[in-house]
Amino acid sequence: MTDTTKPLVISAPEPRTLDLIFTPESLGRLKANYRIVEADPENIAGLDEAILSETRYILGQPPLSAETLARMPALRCILNVESNLINNMPYEVLFSRGIHVVTTGQVFAEPVAELGLALALNLARDVIDADLDFREGRERWGGEGNAGARLVSGSDIGIIGFGDLGRALNRVLSGFRARIRVFDPWMPPSILREAGVEPAPLETVLSESDFVFVVAAVTSENKGFLGAEAFARMRKGAAFILLSRADVVDFDALIAAVESGRIVAASDVYPQEPLAADHPVRRLKGFIRSAHRAGALDSAFKKMGEMVLEDMDLMDRGLPPMRCKRAERETVSRMRSRPVSVN
Amino acid sequence: MTDTTKPLVISAPEPRTLDLIFTPESLGRLKANYRIVEADPENIAGLDEAILSETRYILGQPPLSAETLARMPALRCILNVESNLINNMPYEVLFSRGIHVVTTGQVFAEPVAELGLALALNLARDVIDADLDFREGRERWGGEGNAGARLVSGSDIGIIGFGDLGRALNRVLSGFRARIRVFDPWMPPSILREAGVEPAPLETVLSESDFVFVVAAVTSENKGFLGAEAFARMRKGAAFILLSRADVVDFDALIAAVESGRIVAASDVYPQEPLAADHPVRRLKGFIRSAHRAGALDSAFKKMGEMVLEDMDLMDRGLPPMRCKRAERETVSRMRSRPVSVN
Amino acid sequence: MTDTTKPLVISAPEPRTLDLIFTPESLGRLKANYRIVEADPENIAGLDEAILSETRYILGQPPLSAETLARMPALRCILNVESNLINNMPYEVLFSRGIHVVTTGQVFAEPVAELGLALALNLARDVIDADLDFREGRERWGGEGNAGARLVSGSDIGIIGFGDLGRALNRVLSGFRARIRVFDPWMPPSILREAGVEPAPLETVLSESDFVFVVAAVTSENKGFLGAEAFARMRKGAAFILLSRADVVDFDALIAAVESGRIVAASDVYPQEPLAADHPVRRLKGFIRSAHRAGALDSAFKKMGEMVLEDMDLMDRGLPPMRCKRAERETVSRMRSRPVSVN
Amino acid sequence: MTDTTKPLVISAPEPRTLDLIFTPESLGRLKANYRIVEADPENIAGLDEAILSETRYILGQPPLSAETLARMPALRCILNVESNLINNMPYEVLFSRGIHVVTTGQVFAEPVAELGLALALNLARDVIDADLDFREGRERWGGEGNAGARLVSGSDIGIIGFGDLGRALNRVLSGFRARIRVFDPWMPPSILREAGVEPAPLETVLSESDFVFVVAAVTSENKGFLGAEAFARMRKGAAFILLSRADVVDFDALIAAVESGRIVAASDVYPQEPLAADHPVRRLKGFIRSAHRAGALDSAFKKMGEMVLEDMDLMDRGLPPMRCKRAERETVSRMRSRPVSVN
Repeated sequence: MTDTTKPLVISAPEPRTLDLIFTPESLGRLKANYRIVEADPENIAGLDEAILSETRYILGQPPLSAETLARMPALRCILNVESNLINNMPYEVLFSRGIHVVTTGQVFAEPVAELGLALALNLARDVIDADLDFREGRERWGGEGNAGARLVSGSDIGIIGFGDLGRALNRVLSGFRARIRVFDPWMPPSILREAGVEPAPLETVLSESDFVFVVAAVTSENKGFLGAEAFARMRKGAAFILLSRADVVDFDALIAAVESGRIVAASDVYPQEPLAADHPVRRLKGFIRSAHRAGALDSAFKKMGEMVLEDMDLMDRGLPPMRCKRAERETVSRMRSRPVSVN
Repeated sequence: MTDTTKPLVISAPEPRTLDLIFTPESLGRLKANYRIVEADPENIAGLDEAILSETRYILGQPPLSAETLARMPALRCILNVESNLINNMPYEVLFSRGIHVVTTGQVFAEPVAELGLALALNLARDVIDADLDFREGRERWGGEGNAGARLVSGSDIGIIGFGDLGRALNRVLSGFRARIRVFDPWMPPSILREAGVEPAPLETVLSESDFVFVVAAVTSENKGFLGAEAFARMRKGAAFILLSRADVVDFDALIAAVESGRIVAASDVYPQEPLAADHPVRRLKGFIRSAHRAGALDSAFKKMGEMVLEDMDLMDRGLPPMRCKRAERETVSRMRSRPVSVN
Repeated sequence: MTDTTKPLVISAPEPRTLDLIFTPESLGRLKANYRIVEADPENIAGLDEAILSETRYILGQPPLSAETLARMPALRCILNVESNLINNMPYEVLFSRGIHVVTTGQVFAEPVAELGLALALNLARDVIDADLDFREGRERWGGEGNAGARLVSGSDIGIIGFGDLGRALNRVLSGFRARIRVFDPWMPPSILREAGVEPAPLETVLSESDFVFVVAAVTSENKGFLGAEAFARMRKGAAFILLSRADVVDFDALIAAVESGRIVAASDVYPQEPLAADHPVRRLKGFIRSAHRAGALDSAFKKMGEMVLEDMDLMDRGLPPMRCKRAERETVSRMRSRPVSVN
Repeated sequence: MTDTTKPLVISAPEPRTLDLIFTPESLGRLKANYRIVEADPENIAGLDEAILSETRYILGQPPLSAETLARMPALRCILNVESNLINNMPYEVLFSRGIHVVTTGQVFAEPVAELGLALALNLARDVIDADLDFREGRERWGGEGNAGARLVSGSDIGIIGFGDLGRALNRVLSGFRARIRVFDPWMPPSILREAGVEPAPLETVLSESDFVFVVAAVTSENKGFLGAEAFARMRKGAAFILLSRADVVDFDALIAAVESGRIVAASDVYPQEPLAADHPVRRLKGFIRSAHRAGALDSAFKKMGEMVLEDMDLMDRGLPPMRCKRAERETVSRMRSRPVSVN
């Protein structure tokens, strides 16, 4: 028999699963504290009135109509564990009712930042080709193998976008005594200064950096904003590391800039994923490839469950969620990152 | 005509050269402030009495006999820019006369630490093979490519040796919120604690770490002290990153431990350098190879010149050198790192 | 003639004034970018329809009825520069319309944290009475004057409340290698851990600290929650530093605990302000008095203007405010801090 | 019966005592590991040959002649726990024999730095007179009490001298986002930069700082180097905090500068200690007095014992001392700080 005093949660976390985002221990706590109704995300409307009327939380991002929402008077929060907001529910209705929509994408910040730093260090020190050469017996020893090598320590670094990813990058870079400039038009300059970085226009970030990290989300306004002109501004030999979404970049222009030898680059994201077998990026010199695997660590997924539990606990006590990131009325409809279909 | 009021420096920096270790600007300052006598390191004794009697500094590590030193009453310091101390001069004589012997090896600390972190991140995220697979069209996307991937952030880290390299590693790791244990029997525990790390016995460092960095110098006492037993203590899947000298490790045992799949590893140093074309490490899975190139960056060599100038300036003013590292009477004869023959 | 293309701002910042919260340069920018209508806060409803209908921002916290708000269709944000939220407007209406209510109290965090640290250091080292004794010729020299003296470095510190003040305290304490425990039931534990502090129950914070800083806001639930029982839990000789509001403390119990010699204390806030001339706290030994002056620095007020301009700039561009703190639907009605009448 | 296999230590720590500098637990370790011979510091020469011939360490700073030293062939180190080096032994003999002379003054760095910060914060916020006024019923509330108040956060700070005290100050200031300039002619600029501070000439440190901390040791060259000219360079209203020794300052000029209202100041040290009852500094407005009590905390003295034990352990193993500070051949005779006669 179900304990009807426990708050009710509709679970529709696709493409995630409960086992992906909760450790066994966390899943135990979830089940101990909540009634979980596992639902087909395509048919929330088909759930019993008894369920809808008592639902406090939705775990997932199922399509929801205004009518369905009207049947859910107790709803406090939609906890989107896919993390890219899509336009499949009437956000205005949610916001005007004070129902929070939160995402757990922050879990990816640390893994992405670490991979980003790995890519930067690899570009700076040519680690990958040096290992390949060593395998093949062509290695060059000592200083001879270090032509063009340089340090991240003391360098000029640019970060484009200062959300969770940008902050995590700033943190893993904190031991490097670098000068870090940030372009983020959504962020007030004084907040950037408080984080120890310098707010700067995009042009300056591009032209004054040895390493440029791109961690900006795709919006309706910034598609392809980093193109041939941007790469032409960069310092000769500088490194461009793309970590957020391919849509912010003119990828052909990026390839051309690397091919020309002006810059080196690395990317975790691509215009098509998976990528055609004959795509030129596969053989591009001065380029490091990562197959959209920067964030998708098991430990990151497991953190989602922790975040969800912490915020539901706050909301159970009548407090606002603090752990997950809230969708904002002003920007929810500007987001253009495509959701993932595989974890 | 030489300005005999300027202090006299014998220059014998082999295998370095003045152009390697000084920027043009620094070399200008050196020549403006000192009389430089470029000498054959194998024949310091053959220099004119007028030179020997006025020599204040020796730049380099030439062989010196007690007799030659007796002819150099004005000598204040030997600035060894190769940086590995060899037994080619009577150190006791130098120490009892209060002549400093200093080395500039600290310049390598930052480049080595950055490469060390790069190797650790590459092992943790399998960055190199992922790029190679991508080149060949065999890449795995997203979470599927991340089996076994893990974070440095929040991990347990062990550092063996806490000289300049250990400190530089600790600094580049400072944004990673890791728990860092250090084994260094030459270092009082309270100094380690002040540096924010935990002093620990070797066994604990090995058994409780996800990443073990070896940055200990070779001494007469620690040759091969990391062998089969040490690797057996390590956590399954942990990473072993060797950055100082191959002589502290039983290299065959290291290869066996990696081959068995128990641990993964990376190394910048080898029992023979260069290494035989058929050495098994060339094809070893779970191993990243770097050909003794961790420290030898041009920017590091140029810092040597800066250090030398700063310390000579202090000593010119009757002060002790502060910038370079002093050889210690107690340990100078215990050092066993072989000097390099190429830069 | 007014430029009607500029957004309209109703200015009613009492008890602040525009000259208090803006530097001349900032005030110039405000006037260059906005139409400013200075209004009597008690009579917003009496403003012309032409004004109300175009108002984008209200600078201040004037009483507002639902009717008046209905006449303001362009309103995006109420920027409360007094910073204590009072119940003089229908917050539910504002939230359901998506009108932000933001406060600028964060400007006080840094000055309050610095004064808090000054008070802690003064209690730890008896700085004030030592200076007084010295004036009077009764000083004790060296170690004799240090009975009971102790360090903040390496101590156990408790912080009650981890909003802006708690974070600022944590920052100014960052060089002290202290163990910092935090009690804040509104904050998820993982956020505290990410800030480098340990989440802990109130009882532990009280019983395991050498210094307890109280920076919690007053809510409907926590009035007087720190009373005789709390002080009895504290370590003998520990220091209690009250920085937020007197209402969270049973002040008579605090005085009794200090009088008994069990703890020492300092406070910036009092049950009545100003305080009666014969209030016992005036002569209390082991107590440092500050007359609600921890935050009210001119530089802090001037930062309010900067914050307001930064957030209005974001909202002008259709973005959400990021700089000021937003009132939360869930908690706005729980706040019980009395607003100030003097700056 | 004494265990003659244990190393022999002559104990003559005056004005310290073993009970002052060792905790009971540390004293137990000392006695367990060493033979302790408590000696009259004025008569080391009168000790038995059997003792002198076996002495490995001297704990203290007793007068020693060359003859007495010649009778001590096993001597490795003199551990001076008073910490000011005086000219009562032939240092050249010690250095040429490779006998270390070390001091434990570093234990005072943290307490002095904390008091220095307390004094700076008190000057910046007028905490002391505000408390006194409050006691007398003359307090001013809120902003009215804050005329002239300012923050340490974000300020310009100057530090004169960058030994242990300067480093400890830099550490306790690390959460304040201040710009810190340092004048220390004995320190190479690159070491200052690595510590995150800016090397600067004395004139710049004086003229560009809101807070000037003086932590320089007295030497034969710098007596009274901070006089009327120095104070005239300072910013109007800036704070001067003297923490090392009064001899580096022209104290009358300091008093005049404070009396004139140009600067405010605080001092822990005085030209005479104790100070005359009618000394003008006792009544000086804008000045905070501390009676040479910045360092003399019991916890600091107890750390001396720990340092001594750590370094003796290293030397027992044939290693150089790392924990205490070594006297330098070049500078030992330049030191002019008078030793203390009381703890």
